Amino acid sequence: MKEVFNFNAGPAVLPPEVMRQAQAEFVDYQGCGYGIIEESHRAAQFEEIIQAAEANLRQLMGIPEDYEVLFLQGGASLQFAMIPMNIALPGHKIGFCNTGEWSSKALKEARILGAEIEMLYDGSADGFSRIDGVERWPVPQNLAYVHVCANNTIYGTQFKQFPETGQVPLVCDMSSDIMSRQVDVSKFGLIFAGAQKNIGPAGLTLVIIRKDLLQRVPESLPTMLRYTTHSKSKSLFNTPPTFAIYMLRLISDWLINLGGIKAMQEINENKAALLYNYIDGSDYYRGTADKACRSNMNVCFRLPSEELEKKFIKSATEAGLIGLKGHRAVGGCRASIYNALSQKGVERLVEFMRRFANGN
Amino acid sequence: MKEVFNFNAGPAVLPPEVMRQAQAEFVDYQGCGYGIIEESHRAAQFEEIIQAAEANLRQLMGIPEDYEVLFLQGGASLQFAMIPMNIALPGHKIGFCNTGEWSSKALKEARILGAEIEMLYDGSADGFSRIDGVERWPVPQNLAYVHVCANNTIYGTQFKQFPETGQVPLVCDMSSDIMSRQVDVSKFGLIFAGAQKNIGPAGLTLVIIRKDLLQRVPESLPTMLRYTTHSKSKSLFNTPPTFAIYMLRLISDWLINLGGIKAMQEINENKAALLYNYIDGSDYYRGTADKACRSNMNVCFRLPSEELEKKFIKSATEAGLIGLKGHRAVGGCRASIYNALSQKGVERLVEFMRRFANGN
Repeated sequence: MKEVFNFNAGPAVLPPEVMRQAQAEFVDYQGCGYGIIEESHRAAQFEEIIQAAEANLRQLMGIPEDYEVLFLQGGASLQFAMIPMNIALPGHKIGFCNTGEWSSKALKEARILGAEIEMLYDGSADGFSRIDGVERWPVPQNLAYVHVCANNTIYGTQFKQFPETGQVPLVCDMSSDIMSRQVDVSKFGLIFAGAQKNIGPAGLTLVIIRKDLLQRVPESLPTMLRYTTHSKSKSLFNTPPTFAIYMLRLISDWLINLGGIKAMQEINENKAALLYNYIDGSDYYRGTADKACRSNMNVCFRLPSEELEKKFIKSATEAGLIGLKGHRAVGGCRASIYNALSQKGVERLVEFMRRFANGN
Repeated sequence: MKEVFNFNAGPAVLPPEVMRQAQAEFVDYQGCGYGIIEESHRAAQFEEIIQAAEANLRQLMGIPEDYEVLFLQGGASLQFAMIPMNIALPGHKIGFCNTGEWSSKALKEARILGAEIEMLYDGSADGFSRIDGVERWPVPQNLAYVHVCANNTIYGTQFKQFPETGQVPLVCDMSSDIMSRQVDVSKFGLIFAGAQKNIGPAGLTLVIIRKDLLQRVPESLPTMLRYTTHSKSKSLFNTPPTFAIYMLRLISDWLINLGGIKAMQEINENKAALLYNYIDGSDYYRGTADKACRSNMNVCFRLPSEELEKKFIKSATEAGLIGLKGHRAVGGCRASIYNALSQKGVERLVEFMRRFANGN
């Protein structure tokens, strides 16, 4: 098998041990004679999996008892609408911190749904290259909630501290850094994440919501769009994406065996430091995000010219380093170094970058 | 590996050849060095898959050019809301044919969204055991659309002909019999199906919509809930459930190799006939659905007592015939014999039923 390091921004690399286990038992789950992908979502065998997945998440993230854990579909993009549908409050504005494309998209959906917006921060004037002065952002206490996006895959920035919102629930899109670092869940009203970067394959969306917020959910919403439907039925109101939940369970087992999120965070910080230190010391490559808030998940950088960037991406692919093209909105290069991307992968990338800079 | 025949109502058995292929290339897709589940949805490799899946569906079902094929998430249950959100017409009623739990649920969502309902048929008085006189149902020509559920998994009934709706678009939930028999797509305005019975794993929802109906979609809907969003972006507005789409592609390849839906229908009719003929000839087992409209997908039957039913299900499971418990709403037994459940599986079931009847 060809040795490849996968720097895709998502769907992304999954832990090799998990991939091998899923392969080994794909057609015959624990000797039962068929695959888990063929099992009923009402069967004891799958119930054990979804319960273990939730228990693992609660243990790893320290999710308090007064939070529900929901396994949904539709991606973070559907949450951009479901969140205001479920927990906006008539007559109250929604606070937004606009730090890039994903928060802009969430903002757009809140507006479509008729919400009035209070902009707490808008990074668009800086081209979203920094997240500045979080501790000074004013948070009016009559807001329905405040929306932030923890990590911005396109611009390579990441909140290093979150705004203090007082009594106002903080809603956080953690799609691209969930379980990559320790966070205090009790500081948030709602955390959501598409699974396909750090915790599983595409097709699964995680929502962690403080139970008191469920009282806001209007009965007038369609059944599937109400958080209460899924909390009452333990995410089994209708058929959930069973195979993706099975993968999440294996990945969360893997994280626990690794030493939990504290250990994972250390590994991630080391990986990011290795890459940023090389870029910072180089005259050839240039990081695009402000150093104070650059992402430990998505490392964005430029080369001296667009032509060289094209050549770099092509040569890297040939060398088994794939997925290094920057998002089409900004161009350049991007190395996504999520949980499952190994230290060895980053080392190989740095070696390649050094070689490329010397030869081009 | 234990020989097991899986009669689950969904998620359900998948073709063994497909399961083995997906296993073989799970960690290394076509020698690329990583799994397709880890591939970006924007990569050429995945684009080839989603395009092949659509082309296969168009070929197999004979989907005309003026229909869009959409790959969505959220299951048929989310479609129950999305359909009236997208294609209801202000001031026009929606026609419903209520033939069981799934049409009842769809009806409920249409009401939540404020639609007025014209009931064309209501089978609830008969306990949904028959679908009667379809050719005589009156269809007022000012309805926004008419909703039917092609096959009723819980009651084991199936439309053998569909109502003639004239100019009114016919919307059909084919979750449990799509691609199990030939249908003339051009007779429908919209066909939708959760994939997890006949065409794939859970987590993928197929929508086939006549293009002119897209003109009805209100711009005021949240982006992810608009069919137009997904038609414009070829189902790649956000990250789709990539692995489920890959499985659908393999399953549709398998169907083409088998001889297409015509061949599949013959096999399905033979399987169903084998089982129904045995039940009809037996004094011990009793079919619950009216013979004129019984399902070729879900065969529902009772034993002389609930106690014997419990014993039957337990003994069958021990004999490697799993998933035979009827839905909790009706009790009894149910054998789901979707496309991927082999003739051999039905033969084994009939042998087992004969043995059980003789011994109990």
